[in-house]
Amino acid sequence: MRQIRTDLAMESFRAHNADSLPGVQVNTWEEGDVSVTEVLIADPEGEKLLGKRMGSYITITFPQGRARDALLRASASAVLGEELARLLPPCEDPREPILVIGLGNRQVTPDSLGPLTVDRTLVTRHMFRELPQAVDERMRSVCAVAPGVLGMTGLETVELVLGAVETVRPRAVIAVDALSARECSHLGATIQLSDAGIQPGSGVGNRRRALDRESLGVPVIALGVPMVVHAATIVRDAMDLLSGGEGDQHEEALDNLARELLNSSMGEMIVTPREVDSLVAEAASMLAAGVNRALHPELGEREIRALMDP
Amino acid sequence: MRQIRTDLAMESFRAHNADSLPGVQVNTWEEGDVSVTEVLIADPEGEKLLGKRMGSYITITFPQGRARDALLRASASAVLGEELARLLPPCEDPREPILVIGLGNRQVTPDSLGPLTVDRTLVTRHMFRELPQAVDERMRSVCAVAPGVLGMTGLETVELVLGAVETVRPRAVIAVDALSARECSHLGATIQLSDAGIQPGSGVGNRRRALDRESLGVPVIALGVPMVVHAATIVRDAMDLLSGGEGDQHEEALDNLARELLNSSMGEMIVTPREVDSLVAEAASMLAAGVNRALHPELGEREIRALMDP
Amino acid sequence: MRQIRTDLAMESFRAHNADSLPGVQVNTWEEGDVSVTEVLIADPEGEKLLGKRMGSYITITFPQGRARDALLRASASAVLGEELARLLPPCEDPREPILVIGLGNRQVTPDSLGPLTVDRTLVTRHMFRELPQAVDERMRSVCAVAPGVLGMTGLETVELVLGAVETVRPRAVIAVDALSARECSHLGATIQLSDAGIQPGSGVGNRRRALDRESLGVPVIALGVPMVVHAATIVRDAMDLLSGGEGDQHEEALDNLARELLNSSMGEMIVTPREVDSLVAEAASMLAAGVNRALHPELGEREIRALMDP
Amino acid sequence: MRQIRTDLAMESFRAHNADSLPGVQVNTWEEGDVSVTEVLIADPEGEKLLGKRMGSYITITFPQGRARDALLRASASAVLGEELARLLPPCEDPREPILVIGLGNRQVTPDSLGPLTVDRTLVTRHMFRELPQAVDERMRSVCAVAPGVLGMTGLETVELVLGAVETVRPRAVIAVDALSARECSHLGATIQLSDAGIQPGSGVGNRRRALDRESLGVPVIALGVPMVVHAATIVRDAMDLLSGGEGDQHEEALDNLARELLNSSMGEMIVTPREVDSLVAEAASMLAAGVNRALHPELGEREIRALMDP
Repeated sequence: MRQIRTDLAMESFRAHNADSLPGVQVNTWEEGDVSVTEVLIADPEGEKLLGKRMGSYITITFPQGRARDALLRASASAVLGEELARLLPPCEDPREPILVIGLGNRQVTPDSLGPLTVDRTLVTRHMFRELPQAVDERMRSVCAVAPGVLGMTGLETVELVLGAVETVRPRAVIAVDALSARECSHLGATIQLSDAGIQPGSGVGNRRRALDRESLGVPVIALGVPMVVHAATIVRDAMDLLSGGEGDQHEEALDNLARELLNSSMGEMIVTPREVDSLVAEAASMLAAGVNRALHPELGEREIRALMDP
Repeated sequence: MRQIRTDLAMESFRAHNADSLPGVQVNTWEEGDVSVTEVLIADPEGEKLLGKRMGSYITITFPQGRARDALLRASASAVLGEELARLLPPCEDPREPILVIGLGNRQVTPDSLGPLTVDRTLVTRHMFRELPQAVDERMRSVCAVAPGVLGMTGLETVELVLGAVETVRPRAVIAVDALSARECSHLGATIQLSDAGIQPGSGVGNRRRALDRESLGVPVIALGVPMVVHAATIVRDAMDLLSGGEGDQHEEALDNLARELLNSSMGEMIVTPREVDSLVAEAASMLAAGVNRALHPELGEREIRALMDP
Repeated sequence: MRQIRTDLAMESFRAHNADSLPGVQVNTWEEGDVSVTEVLIADPEGEKLLGKRMGSYITITFPQGRARDALLRASASAVLGEELARLLPPCEDPREPILVIGLGNRQVTPDSLGPLTVDRTLVTRHMFRELPQAVDERMRSVCAVAPGVLGMTGLETVELVLGAVETVRPRAVIAVDALSARECSHLGATIQLSDAGIQPGSGVGNRRRALDRESLGVPVIALGVPMVVHAATIVRDAMDLLSGGEGDQHEEALDNLARELLNSSMGEMIVTPREVDSLVAEAASMLAAGVNRALHPELGEREIRALMDP
Repeated sequence: MRQIRTDLAMESFRAHNADSLPGVQVNTWEEGDVSVTEVLIADPEGEKLLGKRMGSYITITFPQGRARDALLRASASAVLGEELARLLPPCEDPREPILVIGLGNRQVTPDSLGPLTVDRTLVTRHMFRELPQAVDERMRSVCAVAPGVLGMTGLETVELVLGAVETVRPRAVIAVDALSARECSHLGATIQLSDAGIQPGSGVGNRRRALDRESLGVPVIALGVPMVVHAATIVRDAMDLLSGGEGDQHEEALDNLARELLNSSMGEMIVTPREVDSLVAEAASMLAAGVNRALHPELGEREIRALMDP
């Protein structure tokens, strides 16, 4: 089975056109306006079939084509808050920090989701340390870093994050990144969160070594929204559509053609909606609202906004 | 003959796979590192064949895959300066202004080429009016406006530009806009200039009524760099590649498929390099350098930069 | 009486330290959390005393030092909506447009209030023209332009605006601009609206010829928030504080000193809070909310936001 | 002696109006268009007199009022390159990295000098690690991080930097930050570099614990350009000017007044040129050019730019 190029486990599963796969459990349910799909990759066979590491992948999906609907984004934030709270280790001591990492390159619009989410995340760790008596008892200690990308810093993301983890000793890490999808309709309209960490080489850019429990020594929840489809993916999909059932010989020709295109200038291209600037800004606000809600469930949205005013 | 979707007359010509077409003259030559192609659409037959209005379309092309090469951008600027000077009406009185219009939406990265070019254009008209004695005799009167887009202003571009033209009474208008291409390798790596004006509905966005000699009453030179390929285009091209010579029946199926894809969420998508932010900034600097050179050929680059320092 | 340098008529009045002045009427009232002051300059004597043209100047002021309070900004928006509706000519035909002009330079943070307000204003004129049947009956035709500044365009603001006014034939113009104040506590924490138009040479930059009923031929409502204090102003005020009652001789020395400082590099300097970037963004949102409310009083905030989603 | 509020040791020295001070050595010379002043604070007495820690403070100053002159910025870059190379430990092994830290808040224009300088710095460490055979032998290993500010991350700058230092084990750290000055004419027109590290609470914002050899364990060179004058400073200076020689009684009144102003909303205000956006961008380019030159003295400007193209 040929692997398609997507960060969404849900899409990897669907590419098989099967009701079930060995080593993979899939559940889907509705919450208000949005759908939630959990893909649980339970063993190495599932891992191999989906090309993703073992773990739980929860996808929150908007109804088709409504990425720009503010009410849907609010619904998705609320569901994200609940699901994220479920994946995080229970909060035993609010002074034990959660570290939010915004991966990606702030200067490259479709790759700026992580840094923009960090900008909108309520950080409180400094209050816990400097004014513990002033801390609202409904708060939890949170810190947040956007470490930049290798080509801009000369440092692997994991190097910088590891330094921060050793300093902060967080209870868990939430790593936010722009994802790639297979379907254009998922762009900006899908949230994926996972306890499997973030894999090397995925997403919009190329971030290399994994951020996961193994590399960082603490639980790592990966969180993202697809911002791009790789150009090669839509071309390959168009070809598949065409070649439907025309036999193996044709299949090989298609593969050669796809490989050729991948090596041309098109191989580097991404597919996005024209308004990727506002799409990424809105997605970042949606993710940050969900993160803030998961971490301080008793603080209202207005209180959080007021606390973030400088 | 099916029309492909591109703003580059050169690509429209090449899509015919013919050495010559009735009503169309094509010349190609090299200038240093870049190639120049002139497509002259001479009559209504050529107009129909290429789906572009009569006039001269000059394309300055970088060698394959070198869009990010600063030296090539400098070469292309120099050639642009010369070709633009050739298309503009001769300067009889330096006080007669040239009006540069930056089309497109500043907030939408791939559509911001026009406004960013205007930002980097040396404007001098106010000096001619207020401090005529201080004006360097090598200068020409230039003014520049980025009128915004219909959805942001509620005004058609041509309405605002017409107001400016009536106020300024320019010798000519240079209208700068982001273009669409068919080939990914042309993104950021091709300049097109034309005396045919800017057509409605072209480019990255949708700018409606034409800006041309007819609508504005003065010569209009259109200038642009392709920033996007429409997603539907690369899919359609992939299909063509596949179906090569399989007969008309197949062709019809392809058309249906393409139409279907166009109506899906993919129909709205664009293909760009991931680094579209820096690509568009660099292209704007390249265009502005060419415009400044065409309008003030005797001012050096350093002098122009010094004059633009606030 | 020495004139102080401020765009706020309220400050010009207070500088006189008098309960009343000939030709000037002043009323103050509270609306919820904010104070409203109306300074009515009724005749040429008042004009001369305050150094401002005849007309009504309404100032909405936050309680001291609370510029960054989101709830106060919401209160101020609501009051602005009402006061602006009162100053505008009554809406006889919703198809007759209101033209919003955003003055100032988008690239200069403290001067970007006007363009940022335009970005957040709901424009509808194109719907009235293209899809009249789809227009919500609670809407009014609105268009909006940010014409840029002389040094960037080579065109006087009034030239461009006049062109737009002749094209659009609006019922009234709302001209938004960054203002200067005398008191640091007013920065970001005061809205002024006036039916006297916008005066030349005021504000953060230097915009020259007036935009008013006389120059544009339609009613002009000026709207702004102070973003800067001129450095010379706070120095002069500090000196006044010191010299209190020391006689005319001293006064003259002070004036000489102040003039000297003005001619030094300090003369060009502005005083702002460090966070001027977020201050100006918040002020623009506050103004746009008030403008949207005044123009479409029956549309809710959520509806407006949904209409502005691309 | 009352301390004035400035990060420039040169200004601290001049405030004493003395030719020499105990524990302080001052040298001034010209290099082309710019002046260089070295203030060497040699012992605790000098430290106390100038309110700055022991070490060498080198100031590169433009002729009065020419902050926006591109040629002067180029001259200053060249001198910075030489002086910085002199302060850095000699390069024994080009694979031993230099770590450039950009302090400050990217979202607050006058405080964004550090992050913007990092953006323009050539980083090479990843090439040394991944493609050692492809590394130009004239290069040195460089990495660069903009760690953000406490209020945005919840982490003290020194915590994050320490993590990076432990990971990277650099030969030296160059810490870039926006400075405050006393004189408006120094804004954007002065570079200070020092081997004394960066002091807590200085600069535009409030960055707390020092970054110096003691806290980081490696040599720390501080580098910056003044972007603001504190509003209280210019008021206090104006008062001094006025009170010249009027005796101690008056002096006390002045101090009280100054203290009062500091506690008012003015105490938080900064003084900058209106065009602080372009001033800070130009200063960042100037600093990065000097840093690149100091670290890779044999690479030409064009080569560096080409290497930085993505």
